[in-house]
Amino acid sequence: MSDIITISVDAMGGDNGAKVVLHGASLLLSDHKNVQFLFHGRQEILEPLLEEYPKLKPVSKLIHAEKVIEMHEKPARALRQGRGKSSMWSALQAVKDGEAQVALSGGNTGALMAMATFCLRPMENISRPAIAAIWPSMRADIVVLDVGATVGGDARQLVDFTILGSALARALFDLDEPTVGLLNVGVEEVKGLEQVKEAAAMLAQAKDAGFAYHGFVEGDDIGKGTVDVVVTEGFTGNIALKTAEGTARQVGSYLRNALKADILSMIGAFFASKALRALKNKMDPRTNNGGVFLGLNGIVIKSHGGTDEIGLKSALELAYEMAQDNLLEKINDGVQKFSISQQEQKTKEENLSE
Amino acid sequence: MSDIITISVDAMGGDNGAKVVLHGASLLLSDHKNVQFLFHGRQEILEPLLEEYPKLKPVSKLIHAEKVIEMHEKPARALRQGRGKSSMWSALQAVKDGEAQVALSGGNTGALMAMATFCLRPMENISRPAIAAIWPSMRADIVVLDVGATVGGDARQLVDFTILGSALARALFDLDEPTVGLLNVGVEEVKGLEQVKEAAAMLAQAKDAGFAYHGFVEGDDIGKGTVDVVVTEGFTGNIALKTAEGTARQVGSYLRNALKADILSMIGAFFASKALRALKNKMDPRTNNGGVFLGLNGIVIKSHGGTDEIGLKSALELAYEMAQDNLLEKINDGVQKFSISQQEQKTKEENLSE
Repeated sequence: MSDIITISVDAMGGDNGAKVVLHGASLLLSDHKNVQFLFHGRQEILEPLLEEYPKLKPVSKLIHAEKVIEMHEKPARALRQGRGKSSMWSALQAVKDGEAQVALSGGNTGALMAMATFCLRPMENISRPAIAAIWPSMRADIVVLDVGATVGGDARQLVDFTILGSALARALFDLDEPTVGLLNVGVEEVKGLEQVKEAAAMLAQAKDAGFAYHGFVEGDDIGKGTVDVVVTEGFTGNIALKTAEGTARQVGSYLRNALKADILSMIGAFFASKALRALKNKMDPRTNNGGVFLGLNGIVIKSHGGTDEIGLKSALELAYEMAQDNLLEKINDGVQKFSISQQEQKTKEENLSE
Repeated sequence: MSDIITISVDAMGGDNGAKVVLHGASLLLSDHKNVQFLFHGRQEILEPLLEEYPKLKPVSKLIHAEKVIEMHEKPARALRQGRGKSSMWSALQAVKDGEAQVALSGGNTGALMAMATFCLRPMENISRPAIAAIWPSMRADIVVLDVGATVGGDARQLVDFTILGSALARALFDLDEPTVGLLNVGVEEVKGLEQVKEAAAMLAQAKDAGFAYHGFVEGDDIGKGTVDVVVTEGFTGNIALKTAEGTARQVGSYLRNALKADILSMIGAFFASKALRALKNKMDPRTNNGGVFLGLNGIVIKSHGGTDEIGLKSALELAYEMAQDNLLEKINDGVQKFSISQQEQKTKEENLSE
């Protein structure tokens, strides 16, 4: 049997309360036997709830935390008031203390990022953390980052995101050298922001750094799955993610309306109901729930605040995989590989100029 | 009968040649009688082609231009080499000279923007031009700008884009005060880029300026149609546009595959074929072909380079509407209204501080 994976869960985060969290955890447990949980939150709520999941109880430990971070609390205030005392902080602290391999919360994203950065600290040689999304494409799932941790960002940050995102792709998709594209407004070298061009120049020189730099990609390359990892700063990445979600919902609504337009269409929809259900499942945002916080000394998964037990289970599954695949180690490898690649490049240039 | 609308067309722009252009124009002519065309390009190609469209010929004038701007030519080079001599320049010149109300090209976007800016010049009080997309939403068509003219941009530019975009929405959708949202990564006031926050502060003060400022919107508000006009800078706007196009194609491909999965689904697809055809038409990118260049002393429509006669006809239809609705006048009104609104605001503040 494989090693035990311990997931530290903020049981109070999310819009739908602790029940959804425990229910989601019980679903994960039915798929994986080598998992245990630390649930952080108010003892008086969690204790009676846990009684409802007799299989979950023996592999769970409750850790009391008085405070719950509100969904719309400002990050700085949440950090000031929730440090030490909140379920969110407590969940992160367990990862810092080595009691769990990964933390998960469905709470306020900004507060979670602020607390995670403060509690776990950025990794050496990584300037700022990023949130990575696992994005379904026509070819296969791909990684897109940053989808909202940092707004703006220079070339060095885009290079950091490349190292982080390619490590995630190596861990998740079992690839040796994932392909990486920099999101830009055109494939021609002339276009785009200065920092994107600068990052491109830096990435083009990297050799044996754990990724293969593909070049610039455009927005439609995400859905096509042109590369395994799409790198951009958090403002654009967040807007791309939400625009895609909005478009998928829009097309889904067009389809539903079209199939209700007349009796023949309704008959057709009846016959094709299995196919339409498969499509619905494929487009179900719950099956791709979970943003991965990268660049900190510890892995944190952000689950969507409004999800149900199915969505929560997906996010826990992602947390489980991250721990199972030793993501943190792969990132550390990636950081080293890249700095070695840069060192070699520099030595080569020095030799050439002698 | 209404006034004659003259559309100046770069007949050599686009990947599919002059035939698609003339065919598209003949389709527009069958819908509108008060339209005439100036076709710019190589006489030896256009003259024999025009013979194939006997109804189009009497309302068309050919203007010979020797040079054709290549699709991948760099804008600066295109401007240097194509000024005066190219079909693209010639099409713009006709608008500048007042011989046509609107110009259209399916050529190289960067070159067209560079030439249009040089030939028509930015409007007074507008710092830089923008490209607006007409974007279908679940509620109604909306305007999204900038989708690629300017990369980066300060608060003043976002305010300019608001004036331009809301004038376009007034002209196109026949609204008195279109609602405007600034694209951001969160609806809370704390988030986002500095220039977006600054623009928000400026827009919140505007009164009777020809638009109603709604506040921040997120990526998924585009598909929902939360506001009539979504304002952002060109890097993010272009990526949002292409990401949405990619997602729509992706969902379409999922649907096609799902309906081919088994015999029942295929039967269902057969019965629902009318509905599915309606959906396909709704999602057809050709029906929303055409970016509108705003902020110059003349209206220019960019048609997609790879489109066919149906797509070209849509772009010409857009050009026709822009001219018919006096877009340029509405923009000038908007610029004035906003500066009066700012003036009044200033006077009010001065009175208060006395």
